[in-house]
Amino acid sequence: MIRIALAALTFVLSHAGLAETLLVGSQDEFEDAVDNLKPGDTIMLANGAWRDFEILFTGFGTAEQPITLTAETRGEVFITGQSNLRMAGKYLVVSGLIFRDGHTPTNTVISFRRTRGDPAYHSRVTETVIDRFNNPERHETDFWVMMYGRHNRFDHNHLVGKSNAGVTMAVRLDGEESRENHHRIDHNYFGPRPILGANGGETLRIGTSHHSRTDSFTVVENNYFDRCNGELEVISNKSGGNTFRGNLFFESRGTLTLRHGNGTVVENNVFLGNRADHTGGIRVINADQVVRNNYMHGLTGHRFGGALVVMNGVPNSPLNRYDPVVNAVIENNSIIDSDHVELGAGSDEERSATPTDSVFGSNLIFNEDGRNIVAVHDDVGGIEFRGNATNNVDEPALTEGFVNASLELVAADNRLLYPADGQFADVGASRELKVLDPESTGVSWYPKAGSGMRFDTGETIFIGAGEDAIFDAAAGAGAGDVIMLAPGGYLLTKTIVVDRPLTIRAAPGTASIEFERTALFEIADGGSLKLSGLTISGRAAPDVAGNSAIRTHRYSMLGNYALVVEDSTIQDLNTNHSFNFLSVARHTFADRIEIANSVFRNITGHVLSLAQETDDLGLYNGEYVSMVGSTFQNIEGAVADIYRGGTDESTFGPHFELRASSLDSVGKGSRNKSAASIRLLGVQATDIFDNVVADSRPVRVIHTVGDPVTRLGDNRLERTPEPIVREFGGQ
Amino acid sequence: MIRIALAALTFVLSHAGLAETLLVGSQDEFEDAVDNLKPGDTIMLANGAWRDFEILFTGFGTAEQPITLTAETRGEVFITGQSNLRMAGKYLVVSGLIFRDGHTPTNTVISFRRTRGDPAYHSRVTETVIDRFNNPERHETDFWVMMYGRHNRFDHNHLVGKSNAGVTMAVRLDGEESRENHHRIDHNYFGPRPILGANGGETLRIGTSHHSRTDSFTVVENNYFDRCNGELEVISNKSGGNTFRGNLFFESRGTLTLRHGNGTVVENNVFLGNRADHTGGIRVINADQVVRNNYMHGLTGHRFGGALVVMNGVPNSPLNRYDPVVNAVIENNSIIDSDHVELGAGSDEERSATPTDSVFGSNLIFNEDGRNIVAVHDDVGGIEFRGNATNNVDEPALTEGFVNASLELVAADNRLLYPADGQFADVGASRELKVLDPESTGVSWYPKAGSGMRFDTGETIFIGAGEDAIFDAAAGAGAGDVIMLAPGGYLLTKTIVVDRPLTIRAAPGTASIEFERTALFEIADGGSLKLSGLTISGRAAPDVAGNSAIRTHRYSMLGNYALVVEDSTIQDLNTNHSFNFLSVARHTFADRIEIANSVFRNITGHVLSLAQETDDLGLYNGEYVSMVGSTFQNIEGAVADIYRGGTDESTFGPHFELRASSLDSVGKGSRNKSAASIRLLGVQATDIFDNVVADSRPVRVIHTVGDPVTRLGDNRLERTPEPIVREFGGQ
Repeated sequence: MIRIALAALTFVLSHAGLAETLLVGSQDEFEDAVDNLKPGDTIMLANGAWRDFEILFTGFGTAEQPITLTAETRGEVFITGQSNLRMAGKYLVVSGLIFRDGHTPTNTVISFRRTRGDPAYHSRVTETVIDRFNNPERHETDFWVMMYGRHNRFDHNHLVGKSNAGVTMAVRLDGEESRENHHRIDHNYFGPRPILGANGGETLRIGTSHHSRTDSFTVVENNYFDRCNGELEVISNKSGGNTFRGNLFFESRGTLTLRHGNGTVVENNVFLGNRADHTGGIRVINADQVVRNNYMHGLTGHRFGGALVVMNGVPNSPLNRYDPVVNAVIENNSIIDSDHVELGAGSDEERSATPTDSVFGSNLIFNEDGRNIVAVHDDVGGIEFRGNATNNVDEPALTEGFVNASLELVAADNRLLYPADGQFADVGASRELKVLDPESTGVSWYPKAGSGMRFDTGETIFIGAGEDAIFDAAAGAGAGDVIMLAPGGYLLTKTIVVDRPLTIRAAPGTASIEFERTALFEIADGGSLKLSGLTISGRAAPDVAGNSAIRTHRYSMLGNYALVVEDSTIQDLNTNHSFNFLSVARHTFADRIEIANSVFRNITGHVLSLAQETDDLGLYNGEYVSMVGSTFQNIEGAVADIYRGGTDESTFGPHFELRASSLDSVGKGSRNKSAASIRLLGVQATDIFDNVVADSRPVRVIHTVGDPVTRLGDNRLERTPEPIVREFGGQ
Repeated sequence: MIRIALAALTFVLSHAGLAETLLVGSQDEFEDAVDNLKPGDTIMLANGAWRDFEILFTGFGTAEQPITLTAETRGEVFITGQSNLRMAGKYLVVSGLIFRDGHTPTNTVISFRRTRGDPAYHSRVTETVIDRFNNPERHETDFWVMMYGRHNRFDHNHLVGKSNAGVTMAVRLDGEESRENHHRIDHNYFGPRPILGANGGETLRIGTSHHSRTDSFTVVENNYFDRCNGELEVISNKSGGNTFRGNLFFESRGTLTLRHGNGTVVENNVFLGNRADHTGGIRVINADQVVRNNYMHGLTGHRFGGALVVMNGVPNSPLNRYDPVVNAVIENNSIIDSDHVELGAGSDEERSATPTDSVFGSNLIFNEDGRNIVAVHDDVGGIEFRGNATNNVDEPALTEGFVNASLELVAADNRLLYPADGQFADVGASRELKVLDPESTGVSWYPKAGSGMRFDTGETIFIGAGEDAIFDAAAGAGAGDVIMLAPGGYLLTKTIVVDRPLTIRAAPGTASIEFERTALFEIADGGSLKLSGLTISGRAAPDVAGNSAIRTHRYSMLGNYALVVEDSTIQDLNTNHSFNFLSVARHTFADRIEIANSVFRNITGHVLSLAQETDDLGLYNGEYVSMVGSTFQNIEGAVADIYRGGTDESTFGPHFELRASSLDSVGKGSRNKSAASIRLLGVQATDIFDNVVADSRPVRVIHTVGDPVTRLGDNRLERTPEPIVREFGGQ
């Protein structure tokens, strides 16, 4: 490359002759370069980190001579700190940038407009990476990509790890200049998005309810949605005339939802759930939708999150509710080893308009065990069923239009499954269906996400008893390491901060731990903690109210954590009142908390207090809480206090399980505001089985929103009121 | 100074001959030096910052040859980061260090012991500074100085700005080796401690209730308590046989409380309140207390926080309650221009034991206006009153033992006031009483605290209308600056972070502000905000629930902030639900919030939501809230939701005032959990006068603890229920 230094800028002659390539090394140089752009010009950002860089890229290229902003070397230009990118004008191309180690100070990282009314047209963002470029405040809303204008393309980009609130990417129809936009969103890698525990965790949204009867004409094709688990909509389609085709949804919780707008086509997509919890397929609402030749396998989602859901609508629906399904074509889809197909879903007094003028044909629904997965919630006479096939279903919900036979599936060259019997050659997805190659998405020079960090995958560190011995060992431990305690006493004068997955283990009953600070462990961002075989006492803790054995970081945490306690004894958390086993902060989130085969006794607070999101905005503090084979004695607070307020229905959790455990004198402290031994408010799935509860306050389950599943059975109550399960109201 | 380099250490020959002075430059060198100490040795820490240094200073000196740890140059050795100091052994001296820019990782900064049972004796900490060495988490409890052992001295130290929970300094009697300790605490500068808004804000505590009938024999003399405002006890004396003399209490909220233990002497102390709110004097409980020759001036405290309070006790009191006053000697105290002397205070069913065998003599109680400030709450027949004097009191509470005459006071050479008339020469404090010279306390080389930062003390910055113009101006503004807005529209795409006192001003009605983020302003640590003459609309805010016009930092804030809104209009905070004017985070604290002559309308959340401390640990979010001459229309939440839960009685606040204002359609939103137009739970002082409340939910005042004062009057209610004032229970 030839470089000629000219004043503050470095010019490089490009092969196009007059058009220039300008290598810039500072924000001032960049601004000067933008001021003097001609069609065909390229601005190259010099390699390295560009900190606090709010890029405003404007210009007017032509179809033949676009204007380009790119990296000196792809993968070696990092936009960090408080940074973002706005583009406005025509025929602009951005490529090769990496946004990471920072967040946008505005509400968007990449915006296809300068400001209201001044968008980009015929412009493209390609081969750009946004990697965990998150506002540190979990529930501060922002967006990574906002498409405005028309005829823009977003392709071959890599977006991974959005952990704060806000849709990852949105197509906006706010202004007239952004409607019927014919955007193309293709070959992107939408990498893992963790469970948000709130509304606002969609990966892609097209339109909003304000423009729900407007056409967008956006094409979304050949994108890879890898574990996009933010909330219950992976894609929220809120406009008309869009096309979703050739996309791969891998282990993603939630569905592609045709929430608003008519005339959208969903075809040739592959959904592989691998039976991960809440993996879903396609939800159909509104008129003229086509759902064709999609392949769903191993989807466990239920209710509105099923493999295929056809909703009831609201007669004369307001903009933000449900238009009825009219003239839907649902054919040649394969639904294999999945749990739920729902027809007339949501039928209630308000959603009383059943589907009409629709066809459900040539679909394959296959489950090895012959169980029926089709639920019919209302009159489906407006749907013509024809040529569908199921596998030996014992009690089919529908018979007309279904062949219920012994099917055998075999893998084709594309590794998808098809009926072996030629009789069913036209049922289900086409043998020509191509499964998207992940390597064709995103960029080659930035690795796609692997599996998450796990416990017990690192070294084992053996330590002897002594003051602060665990603190010192933890400070030096790596992710996944195990600290193995020799028998003896361990006094901690400092709180152990856990910012990586860490296991503390001892032979049960041999190692006893006391602590002098207000908490023994603090789980910080990136941390997860497993305690195995420990005996922990609170008797050396300070004489102040509100201590904890374990607490989360006091601030917002972007990383979801796991806490596992097994074969342990936790006792005498009682130096003062309100001493919890686990205290969490607002805006922290546990992916899972598992307590097994452990004893908790003499505690003046709660065992698990997951009740900090009291603003009723639909937030909560943990997804899966499980307590099995454990004993809880003399607990002044609740064994678990889980609170999920708010009336939105955007989350799958929280989930709670208590099995084969005993509670004795639980919840009777005067400060126990939950007034329960276990309080579950807004929990979506509850299983309480095979427990003994004595001399305790009742279990209280308060249903708030959604269609929560609460199962209780084989619990023995002694001098304890019956469980209270009630509806809170909500909408 | 001569330095001879020897291996890792640098030795300096000291004048003492064999004893050595060792100048050390690293933590390793320090540890080597400690391992080899002889009587008479001195370790000098090299000038500079010592980061993350947990100093363990142990050794055995002699009375003639103590062992010293000091600074190369006093005032030039800084202990920073996660650091602390423990000392154990005999005849140790520490001097000249500065702890700042960090906090202790354990529960103590300076501890007179290594660990349990291994204290220091005959040891001294002198000329040492601890300056805002605070855990960043406001309600994480720790202590700056813990005295253990016996015959130790803490003198000429400078302790300023403890802002997190926990007593600044404590004398501990936990082990036998720490009782009857004869410690001396003298000539220290206890600089300003801000209001904590919780229990745990005492400046000095001697003993705990566990050892409340144990003698400590600690002398506290000639210390300067400058604005020690943490909570309602400046000093909590919880052991017997102590002496407090010659101390100066300057504008300190709260009292010297003889909480536990018998036979303590309080004499020759000077309390200057300058009529600051809640400034108090001495509170007497237990037997054999002597309160003599103290001078109190301008103390406004009431109830248990009065200038002089003699409590009722509990018959056969448990250790942690109130032993009755027996054999108290209270004489020759001057109480001038103060508001409350309380006798038999706290009299109730439990505290039924009146003072006995006591003397109240030769005290001067002087108020210019002749009002009676003495309250008698129970039978005081067990107190002999003799030779006291008051000034022309109209309706004296007591007459026997009091001369009620026309008194004139004149200043003596010590600048204190005494009766001009020789007839009263023996009444009140002695003319020989010396007012402590602040310069004799602390150290000469570290400045004592000035007054706090204030609004409108800096430059005025004039700016014109435009996108992010206020953001840019605020980024460059200094503390106390005023940003003056020209007429026009101001759109903010970023949140303005305010981390210093800042005023934004416009001619009323000329400048209108909109914002695109979830908050317009964020008050960060060190920040305070004054808005004057602005028009703020929320209509450009994002369509998500939970926005705010102003919010605090989302994390704990050590600095208390002020918020003033005057002559402003705040409207259309309604893009989605739960949009507050002010949202605060847990563990943040407003010293004052003042709203005057402003209009608030069309708000889907609360105007002021100060209700984040829901753990009922006695915490709250703001001290003084005042709303005057303002209009509130169509507010779905409350105009103010203030929550102070918990049953302890350690705080003076919160305080609330609403005057000359109108509320129209306030509190009726379905999400308003307060179920009120104004909810005040646990507020200690409420004044609601001269307001008009129409079509609104009722005002709710819930008394929880203490003896709250709630005054309502001249309010006009239209289609609005009567205010509800009720007791919550509590203890």
